[in-house]
Amino acid sequence: MPRSTRRRPALAHPEAESIDLYDVLHALSDPTRMTIVRILRTEPERACGTFPVDVAPSTLSHHFKVLRESGVISQREEANRRFSALRTVDLEQRFPGLLDTVLAALARNGDDA
Amino acid sequence: MPRSTRRRPALAHPEAESIDLYDVLHALSDPTRMTIVRILRTEPERACGTFPVDVAPSTLSHHFKVLRESGVISQREEANRRFSALRTVDLEQRFPGLLDTVLAALARNGDDA
Repeated sequence: MPRSTRRRPALAHPEAESIDLYDVLHALSDPTRMTIVRILRTEPERACGTFPVDVAPSTLSHHFKVLRESGVISQREEANRRFSALRTVDLEQRFPGLLDTVLAALARNGDDA
Repeated sequence: MPRSTRRRPALAHPEAESIDLYDVLHALSDPTRMTIVRILRTEPERACGTFPVDVAPSTLSHHFKVLRESGVISQREEANRRFSALRTVDLEQRFPGLLDTVLAALARNGDDA
């Protein structure tokens, strides 16, 4: 069955209070995923195909899934597009200061694109 | 050749200024490794066999290696024992506030031993 006619499963998101620190740290431990997070920090929402990352579509899908299932981002579908947003409020409530501290560390890491 | 008579290679440690954020986040994304970090936060040095973690020795060796190669801990050998210490100063200089913020997040994560 071609992908386009298959019904997509609902996108799974952890509840804010269930966001797990190890999942978040793992999600942030990859440069492509961190690039996505860094971009989403500056805008409310973005279509998944529009991130300036140089990886295969299947790899990018995996990265978005890791970010979503860890609770770092939320995703919603509209027509044929999927939009991502950073769960800034949920993350700040669950782990105060973590996201900002990690992004400040990223700026010192010397290799962020 | 039995392990005991084999000369051990020198322990590799990254320079403080070369500590990589992604390596650090990956190192901290595991509960056993985080337990080691949390314990080392409270004492200057500890022999590797004395951590209260319930994993096989080979698994524990792997965890120490990941922590050391990421720059999170330093290790030294003395006679037949290997001692570990947190690289608190190096980490704080490289990524200010990161370690404390992650450990504060750990306290909120609800599953730290």
